[in-house]
Amino acid sequence: MSGSDPLFPGFVYGGLIASLIDCHSTGSAAAAAYKAAGRELGTQPELRFVTASLHVDYLRPTPLDAELEIRGRIEEIKGRKVIVTSTLSAQGQVCARGRVVAVQVPEAMKPPPGSPA
Amino acid sequence: MSGSDPLFPGFVYGGLIASLIDCHSTGSAAAAAYKAAGRELGTQPELRFVTASLHVDYLRPTPLDAELEIRGRIEEIKGRKVIVTSTLSAQGQVCARGRVVAVQVPEAMKPPPGSPA
Repeated sequence: MSGSDPLFPGFVYGGLIASLIDCHSTGSAAAAAYKAAGRELGTQPELRFVTASLHVDYLRPTPLDAELEIRGRIEEIKGRKVIVTSTLSAQGQVCARGRVVAVQVPEAMKPPPGSPA
Repeated sequence: MSGSDPLFPGFVYGGLIASLIDCHSTGSAAAAAYKAAGRELGTQPELRFVTASLHVDYLRPTPLDAELEIRGRIEEIKGRKVIVTSTLSAQGQVCARGRVVAVQVPEAMKPPPGSPA
């Protein structure tokens, strides 16, 4: 997958932008949860988050040949739920805004230790 | 890209679900716009849509080994804007719901005829 939009060569495909915002937000949610618990990142038991909902506003086409920067902000931590808002920028311009509701994964859903994930 | 979630093997990655809903919705928007104009699909000048906003609610994990079905519904057509809601199902269960605001591409943004897109 090149990341190019199939209809608009030279611009980043919107589904990839959604994927980047999704990944960045669940990672940010986990980091915030570790911090809120006063724990070091990555310590056991691991805190993992899945996406309950994803919203992306596409403000302008995102150029394919530029470095992309995503900045997330923790809007709210409430129990197992973390809300993360973010911007995706290229060349200093915000191209997309995201809002993700991330939920901490129950222990039962986690893959067993040592699994290839 | 296998489509598997990097954290949860056996389930479809949420970013891919967002991509599927995005593609299906902009295509549905175009089809609705042709129909609303009383035109045959694919006739010139071509009606193309981009995503202004994408919202996905993830209701349950989507199994990787099942056939996925997306069904879209045109919620509203208003000028150049079409709102499409959709469900993504596997094995008869709705796994995700989408809502996309699609906007018809201005002539100036279209790639020239014969371009590889």
